Amino acid sequence: MASTEDTKPDPGWLGDDDDNPVTAAARPAPGAGDNPVMTDPRTVTTVLFDGFEPLDVFGPLELFGQLPDQFRLVLAGPDGAPVRSAHGTPVVTEVSYETAPSPDIVLVPGGRGTRPLVKDPAFLAWLARWAGPAKLVTSVCTGSALLAAAGLLDGYRATSNKRAFAWARELGPRTEWVARARWVEDRDRWTSSGVAAGMDMALALIARMHGRPLAREIAGRVELEWHEDDEWDPFAVEAGLVPAE
Amino acid sequence: MASTEDTKPDPGWLGDDDDNPVTAAARPAPGAGDNPVMTDPRTVTTVLFDGFEPLDVFGPLELFGQLPDQFRLVLAGPDGAPVRSAHGTPVVTEVSYETAPSPDIVLVPGGRGTRPLVKDPAFLAWLARWAGPAKLVTSVCTGSALLAAAGLLDGYRATSNKRAFAWARELGPRTEWVARARWVEDRDRWTSSGVAAGMDMALALIARMHGRPLAREIAGRVELEWHEDDEWDPFAVEAGLVPAE
Repeated sequence: MASTEDTKPDPGWLGDDDDNPVTAAARPAPGAGDNPVMTDPRTVTTVLFDGFEPLDVFGPLELFGQLPDQFRLVLAGPDGAPVRSAHGTPVVTEVSYETAPSPDIVLVPGGRGTRPLVKDPAFLAWLARWAGPAKLVTSVCTGSALLAAAGLLDGYRATSNKRAFAWARELGPRTEWVARARWVEDRDRWTSSGVAAGMDMALALIARMHGRPLAREIAGRVELEWHEDDEWDPFAVEAGLVPAE
Repeated sequence: MASTEDTKPDPGWLGDDDDNPVTAAARPAPGAGDNPVMTDPRTVTTVLFDGFEPLDVFGPLELFGQLPDQFRLVLAGPDGAPVRSAHGTPVVTEVSYETAPSPDIVLVPGGRGTRPLVKDPAFLAWLARWAGPAKLVTSVCTGSALLAAAGLLDGYRATSNKRAFAWARELGPRTEWVARARWVEDRDRWTSSGVAAGMDMALALIARMHGRPLAREIAGRVELEWHEDDEWDPFAVEAGLVPAE
């Protein structure tokens, strides 16, 4: 059922390595998982804003952060000053939106701070311009509402938080919204369900880039029960979006 | 199997409410879960240090943060300046160790930053003096190694990260270490297993204070599969600490 089989065709966002003999040699064969070291760490830049949901960010970053040779973590904020989470915790950002280089991987969290941003044309224009060229754009929870409002999910399949699903759907009329999904992978757009689902998606991404054995090792290291099946989604049933099986 | 039955006797750390007619009236009966509003929010102060594990902190705080009327979240750092997590992310702290009031609930995370701190007499003396009077002292992952080194687990049952279990055990010779445990509740000391286990413990604590229905509602809101059984622990088996059942 899981769509993260290691044998799936490379969608292209593994990057330039295919054309680069140095990094291509260092990259393990899909599913090999026995040589996770890559010469280049991929930059994962997270878009922070006032009212972001902390676990949407620190769940996935906990997992990417276990592999410092593979992932370099950057936090971007509106102006490079500390940003306050939905629970008040301030987090330091390293770069402003305007000065952040377009990264390999974009991570857009959800949280109540998404509500004003979907009506903020300047933010949405920046997000579309900045995230568009990234090799992979990912979101957690209502982060997909921001991607949809910026047009970044037009023509893609996607999911969102199950309790805010109708709202996300309204913002993405040209998106095929998938109700029962822990996360949805569609080429260079990966979107996860609410909050904790971001961790399952992050492990699936690690599995795709570096093999399933390494993803399982990371899950074990942080004592996380990884839901490997992207269709595991009791919350879609609880929210009344799909019937119980 | 779960030791968090709502009918369990109040261990005392629910606080002064029993003697306060105002807050006692506002406090729901154990297991009621239908009146979660308490007049006083409980202060949860997290002890940050360089090299703390981010999910140890932001997992539990995500859950407490869903209940702003019940929990007030404070981050304490060595000197009140930003503190760098084990993955480099800097987090703003609001108070220094010396100026932080002793809170209702202490949360001590793990991470590689615990390694130097277990040999730091000034830190351990401060932790014992400051955390000792709190109504409840909790830890996630190798945070229990810090509590043990400070003498705060003497005469208590406790657990820790399964891959650092032997190390934690050495630091707490007067502690009864429990290998197979997602978390251990012993009076005013609650200790969880590695990283992700802190979220299960936080929900158990919410269940004890505000009823299991509210804890389940919070888990559903963040789309987290809560392991309600404190003996659920496949990682103790994986680490070879206990035989497979």
